[in-house]
Amino acid sequence: MFNMSNLDFQIVKVKEDILIENDKKADSLRKFLKEKGIYFINVMASPGSGKTTLLTRIINALKGKYRIGVLEADIDGDVDAERISKNTGVKVIQVHTSGACHLTAQMVEDALKAFGVDDLDLIILENVGNLVCPAEFDTGSNINMMLLSTSEGHDKPLKYPLMFQVSKIAVISKMDVAPIFDFDLNKAKENILYRNPEAKIFALSSIKNEGVDSLINYLDSLIQNSK
Amino acid sequence: MFNMSNLDFQIVKVKEDILIENDKKADSLRKFLKEKGIYFINVMASPGSGKTTLLTRIINALKGKYRIGVLEADIDGDVDAERISKNTGVKVIQVHTSGACHLTAQMVEDALKAFGVDDLDLIILENVGNLVCPAEFDTGSNINMMLLSTSEGHDKPLKYPLMFQVSKIAVISKMDVAPIFDFDLNKAKENILYRNPEAKIFALSSIKNEGVDSLINYLDSLIQNSK
Repeated sequence: MFNMSNLDFQIVKVKEDILIENDKKADSLRKFLKEKGIYFINVMASPGSGKTTLLTRIINALKGKYRIGVLEADIDGDVDAERISKNTGVKVIQVHTSGACHLTAQMVEDALKAFGVDDLDLIILENVGNLVCPAEFDTGSNINMMLLSTSEGHDKPLKYPLMFQVSKIAVISKMDVAPIFDFDLNKAKENILYRNPEAKIFALSSIKNEGVDSLINYLDSLIQNSK
Repeated sequence: MFNMSNLDFQIVKVKEDILIENDKKADSLRKFLKEKGIYFINVMASPGSGKTTLLTRIINALKGKYRIGVLEADIDGDVDAERISKNTGVKVIQVHTSGACHLTAQMVEDALKAFGVDDLDLIILENVGNLVCPAEFDTGSNINMMLLSTSEGHDKPLKYPLMFQVSKIAVISKMDVAPIFDFDLNKAKENILYRNPEAKIFALSSIKNEGVDSLINYLDSLIQNSK
């Protein structure tokens, strides 16, 4: 009477189709941006992990060298777009996802059309705060960077496999409060590398501006090498 | 060429069907548990908001009065089930969601069948750490309780509307570290009530055991009144 297996099958099938279409769209978007000489970074994390604070540091460090545009994705509200705009002065657009917990490549393309990319060298997407769905959707970015804040705990890579698997850069944020939360940095690194042995890990505090420089230098080298 | 509108339409349609089926299943599950005299609390929050630590306090306070069973939902891993089991001694079952960011009522029913409910008065579900998808799916619970930790910031109700709308109880956790994160309790309360004017708000620290008692008393009164 309440068997959902037929519906479950349907949603799995439709989702597969969606993901295949999304991958195509992401590849074409990546190619388009490559031709324009634009590098694209997709930033993912839980709500409140410190994405906006870290991005403000990164943008202020790189904005003299690259023309930067920021896409802020949220289900509702525009608090982050306002913060980034006020604290960095770069071009920002707020994207609302109509309730969805992720951004598709199509949504990114639509936003970039509205935004205009001809005056940009670097696009940074701050994805919806979520450790699950955004990891499933290729946004057309050149690299995925994820944040794990020390207040969330070092066990999270065990619970959210895909997010750590698809992110080449894993940032451990809020290191200044690690002792308060009994956060074990070595265990965190071990858990991240268990999910993705290739991950580049940066442990830092955006508020105290500690460890942020080496991440910025790494991002800078990636952008340079993409040219 | 890359228009996804047909697929988008399909997924919206299938999702609507899924949600309608899920609501039916949730209602029947709620009725079944009511007949058995079992109260069911669904707990939702971001990853690392302190659900497991708070639940340990609540369970230890109520386990002398009620026979409690805990469902731990995660995409992978069993760290929380182990913690609850070790620190409270009550019956715990780990549910894996096969990559999904939420639990359906069907998954809850399957888990409860495997678990056995005849020796229980109270079921607590610790849902997948996520501020988006779990809010869409009625689990068959009598009440939704959500946590917002001070490390996440007081702006989160603006960004994740549905989670705050569907949760009758909003717990502000990690109050002991609120000053470190410039967390504004009044703004947080204002933002929560903007999304849900009926929300019962509890600000507390599970680690310091401050403010937890009034939440426990409130939950106890809800369970009593349901009899």
